[in-house]
This record gives sequence, structure tokens and C-alpha cells, in this order.
Amino acid sequence: MSKGYNPLSRANPHIRRLHAYVPGQQPSGGDWVKLNTNENPYPPSPKVLEAIRGELDGEGTRLRLYPNPLSIPLRQALAAHHGLKPDQVLAGNGADDVLNLLMRAFAGPERAAGMTVPSYSLYEVLAEVQQAKMIEVAFDRSMKLDPKAIGDCGANIFFLTSPNAPTGVGFTRKEVEAAASAFEGILVIDETYAPFAGEDAVALLARHPNVVIVRSFSKAFSLAGLRVGYALASAEIIEVLDRVRESYNLDRLAQAGALAALGDGAYYRQVTADILTVRSQMAEWYAFKGWFCYASATNFHFVEPRNSAGQSGPQVAESLYNALCARRVLVRYFPKHPLTQSFLRVTLGTEKEMQRYRDAVDSWLKIN
Amino acid sequence: MSKGYNPLSRANPHIRRLHAYVPGQQPSGGDWVKLNTNENPYPPSPKVLEAIRGELDGEGTRLRLYPNPLSIPLRQALAAHHGLKPDQVLAGNGADDVLNLLMRAFAGPERAAGMTVPSYSLYEVLAEVQQAKMIEVAFDRSMKLDPKAIGDCGANIFFLTSPNAPTGVGFTRKEVEAAASAFEGILVIDETYAPFAGEDAVALLARHPNVVIVRSFSKAFSLAGLRVGYALASAEIIEVLDRVRESYNLDRLAQAGALAALGDGAYYRQVTADILTVRSQMAEWYAFKGWFCYASATNFHFVEPRNSAGQSGPQVAESLYNALCARRVLVRYFPKHPLTQSFLRVTLGTEKEMQRYRDAVDSWLKIN
Repeated sequence: MSKGYNPLSRANPHIRRLHAYVPGQQPSGGDWVKLNTNENPYPPSPKVLEAIRGELDGEGTRLRLYPNPLSIPLRQALAAHHGLKPDQVLAGNGADDVLNLLMRAFAGPERAAGMTVPSYSLYEVLAEVQQAKMIEVAFDRSMKLDPKAIGDCGANIFFLTSPNAPTGVGFTRKEVEAAASAFEGILVIDETYAPFAGEDAVALLARHPNVVIVRSFSKAFSLAGLRVGYALASAEIIEVLDRVRESYNLDRLAQAGALAALGDGAYYRQVTADILTVRSQMAEWYAFKGWFCYASATNFHFVEPRNSAGQSGPQVAESLYNALCARRVLVRYFPKHPLTQSFLRVTLGTEKEMQRYRDAVDSWLKIN
Repeated sequence: MSKGYNPLSRANPHIRRLHAYVPGQQPSGGDWVKLNTNENPYPPSPKVLEAIRGELDGEGTRLRLYPNPLSIPLRQALAAHHGLKPDQVLAGNGADDVLNLLMRAFAGPERAAGMTVPSYSLYEVLAEVQQAKMIEVAFDRSMKLDPKAIGDCGANIFFLTSPNAPTGVGFTRKEVEAAASAFEGILVIDETYAPFAGEDAVALLARHPNVVIVRSFSKAFSLAGLRVGYALASAEIIEVLDRVRESYNLDRLAQAGALAALGDGAYYRQVTADILTVRSQMAEWYAFKGWFCYASATNFHFVEPRNSAGQSGPQVAESLYNALCARRVLVRYFPKHPLTQSFLRVTLGTEKEMQRYRDAVDSWLKIN
């Protein structure tokens, strides 16, 4: 075809209208305190590095060969880790890959998806790409789960972030189970942050065949850079997802690294304990300041800052966000929703990083 | 939901009917001569290993951070490599990821896809997942490209494997350009094997805005295990694909490794030259045996074996396939199509591997 041709006219109309998901900023270089994408502040287990280096042995000749298409050793280890069977596990190129497979298999123009609002905005984008209607079940400021509203929403597949993001609020297994009972479609429980919570919903798989649990290696395992996530579900659901999955979705180094991470529970228990210590310290600090902050079951806080006059609100949150940025402290601000626009989401970093954050907040308070 | 619940009843009907793509076998361990999935027999450049190891420095703390979501340094290097602009490049989790994005953006229930047959059967699966009709443009035994048939096929997006697989037949830039001129939709030129061919179609991008070129690091760069592929197209097309792409589709180690591979042209020119030497030797051997073999512009041969009585055909091909397997030499057999069922696809390995393959063939010939 010649010049003047518009390739966009060939794209699917719903893709032409699509707004892509905007991930948190990933500043490169510089002295940033990065508290905006809920990464783990501690490095991965030394065993992860050892396993990846091992995969490079022999002049790296294994890299020339395709990886295990089903990530079998990793699936087996994940099954053992959760007390399930290997055919109940699927490994993905990050949890986002798994969420995308779920949307493709179970949503479409005639099969609506559902989600609580506010939660992870990627679900909306995945539904748009799949040309599926997205049904929103609204939280109120209490952020309490409403299982009946989920049960009544009419979606074919529902995405429940538990613990929730960006609020950090945890739900009990009993509350999540009430949603699994009330809802007739596929209930995806996105447990990206569950390793930081008191309990998870894995036990529900034994008695609720409509439940899918999605997990990530990005947060609790310090491996956001490696892109590994997984689904736990019935063998029937996993088999359907495998049909849609790309044959070699997980590279050799990611498979080896994730497998090794899973094998070093002692290291990660310590890492998680350290994060929970910082979480308690920060919760106390917010309480001392008189700032409202949701009780966190995750590795971040969702906090409503007040200026020195005791005022909160969108302008206050945005002012602090900008002041932090100016001091190279990056947090996340969600200005588009009434329940989020007066808040900031602040990842739990190391004690030293949190000190820099607190210092930056105090500097802002002196002039605001 | 209680027991007796059938989660499959919730899946999209076209997904319930779907047959997944079946990749070539990846035997683990043992003394296999693996000539079935067109992997490069030589290891990747030492600079690739160096770059990946470098990414693990500092206790691997970079792994805890999300990768560059756009793979910017890699896109810039690929653009420079091909004489294009960075906004004309998209990097994917293997070429399969890129092909999937193209199908999602440009095919659907009302927008048919097209492909030549025989070629890469993954296209059919991707179309099925996208609920798009697949229009087939048939080759005859000559395997000559028919640009007019592509132009007239009525598809919205057409996938042309060039050089073709599984036949190995190369098309000239002029022939491919004729297809780009004749076809009004998006023409995807899958150049996975182009580094082994005499010419490629990159120059067409400057004058054919409907062209997308897809490339892979799996074959020529010896990095099948790392999962990196890419698209070259107009900035408009790349922007659409980026909307559908997962935010962090390429992990840190894959980005670092691919970038380093691209920087070691000298190493890979030698690797490719070595493979082409083996290609000539094997072509001569087939000719000496009186076996028909398509002239290969790739790193494999598509060959029609004859038994000692001079017979060819599906039974002969299958007999040799099984005999090779029994001697732990793995090649690929496509029994489902009249134009492929009398042939075997045999990857070009090292000279030593090809010797083992030839010995196994000769043993078979003694009793067949």
C-alpha cells in the first residue's frame, strides 16, 4: 500500500478507542527513594542468584534451547508449597499475564467482567481489550467487602483484589468465602499482597470450584524484575488457561529464579518480618500525626495526609505528592476517584528510606 | 459455588472449542540430538552472559525492581541496527507475544486473518483465540509465493512467513513487495529466519505503511531460552500494539541479554556462517542420496526421504522419523497436510550432530 494509507483504520474499533494501562513511573538512575510501585526493598534470596547463574553455566548453552513450555518444575514446587496438585497450577509472565489469560478465557462481548472500585485499574484495561463490559462494585469509605453485591452483580468473572490495593485493606477468609458462595461466575482472588496478610484464601479452592487465586513473585519474593506470577485453581480451569497461554511464556532464567525463591522460605520469612516491623512503625507515625490511614495487610499504606492546619483533601494530597517528588521521594497518587484523591499510596521501604520519606513530609509540613 | 459446578460452562464458547498450539518436544536430559525446533546449535555470545551476570550484581537488588516497561534501551538498539526510529520498534516476550498482539489489534469476529499454507500453525491458534476467521492461501508443491492470491484473499491482516517454515523456502524482496502492494490490509512478514536468508524485507517499511516485520532472538541469536522477539513497523502501528501489550512484558535479564546480543555482530556473523556451511554440506548430502529437498534460506531443511527402494511418501517419512527417535535423534514431522506429510523438517545442528543424524539415517536405510 502507498503513502496516505492509514493503518489504524484496520485496527479493531475497540482497540482504536483503548486507553492503555499506565504503570507507575520507573525512574532510572539518581538517588530516588522509590515508594510508588510496591516493590520489596530487600534483594531476592542469594539462592535465586545462584540458580540463575547456574542456568548460565557451560557457556550459557542452555539459553539457546527453548524453556520448559509448561514450567513443570516450578508448577510442581508451587503445588507442594500450597498443598495442591501440579495440575492446579499455571505459571505466567508476571501475574498480569495470568490476569490477561483469565479475561480472554472467561470474558467477552457477551460475558461481563466485574471488579471492586477502587482496586487494580489494569482489570478495566484487560476487559476493554477483550471488548467485555466491566461491572463495578463500589466500596464506600469503610472499604468493607460486600459479598452480596458481588453475588448480585451479574458478571461472568469477578476480580477481587485481596488484600485490596490501593487501600491495603485485608479481608478475612470468611468474608472472601461469602463472596465465593454468593457469586455464580468465576471468582478471581488476586492475592498479590497475601504474603503480607494474616490469612489467605487458598483453602477455598477445595470447596469452591469457581475460585481462582492469582499470586505474584514481584512483591513478597523481591522479583518484580523477573516477571513471574501464577494461578491456583481447579485442573479444569487451569487446562482452559493453558489453551490460551503462549507456549513458552516463561523464560529459563525466570523459571529457575522463581523455583529457587520458593525454596528459601527462611530468607523470605525474615524479609517479610522486617517489612511488617516497618509497617507497624509507620502506622504509629501516621497515628501520632493524626493522619487517617487504613490498617494495612500489605507492604504499603494508603494514607490521607493533613497539612499543618489539619486540613485534608485532594489539594493537600497533591501538594504533598509534588513536594515529595521534588525531594526525589516517589509515591503513588490516584487523583481520579473520590475515595482515592485525598490519599497517597506509600510503599514500605527500608527503615532508612522511610526516614527520608518522613523527613520530606516534615519539611512539607513546615510550609503547608 | 458448591461441588458439581462446571467452571467450563463459564468459558467463552470459542475457547471451549479451542485446540491449543502444540510446540515441538523439549526432551529434558539424555543424549538427544535435538533437531526439531530450529534452535541454534551454538551458545549465545559471551557478552550476553556478561550482561546478564552484570544485571545480577549488587546482591541482585535490581531484580526487586520492575523492568523498563517499554524496553527502551533495547528498542533504541534495534532501531539503530535496522536503520529505523525507536518508535518503529516494539519488543515482546518472544515473537509469539508480538504475533499475539498483532492478532488482538487487527483481527476479530468481523476482521479475518490470513496465512499461507503450509506455514506456522500458531497463527491459526491465535486467530481462534481471537475468534477470527482464518483465510488460507494455499501453496502448491513449488512453494512459490502468489502475491495476487494474498491481495485477493480479503483478510484484514495477513501473516506471511518469509523465509517460509516448515519448507525453508526464501522469497525475494521483490516477491514480498508484490504482496505488500497487492494486499490492502496489514501484512505481517514473519522474518524469524531472515538472518539466514540472502535478503530481508526491512526496506519495505519505508514505502509500505501496511507492513509489519516480526523478528526473533530465538534462532539467529541462540536465545530461544530467553524469550525475546520484536516488531518493526510504522510508529502508528507500534503505538496500537503498545496499548494491547502487557506493561512489563519483558523481564530485566531478557532485556539485558538481547541488548548485549545485538552488540556482538561479529560473533553472530561467525555463528551464522558456520550454520550456512553445514547447510551446504547437508544439501549436497541430500542431493547425493537423491532425496528432494527445498533450497533452504533458513537454519533447517525440509526434505523428502526415500527408502532404499527409492520410494517416498508419508509412510517412508514416518518410518524414518520413528527410526531417528529410537536413536535419540529428534526431528519434526507434520503428518496432517498433503504437502508436508512426506517430508521431515531437520534443523541444522553442529557438524557432529549432523554426523549422528546421517549415521542414523544410514542405519535406517539398511533395513528400509
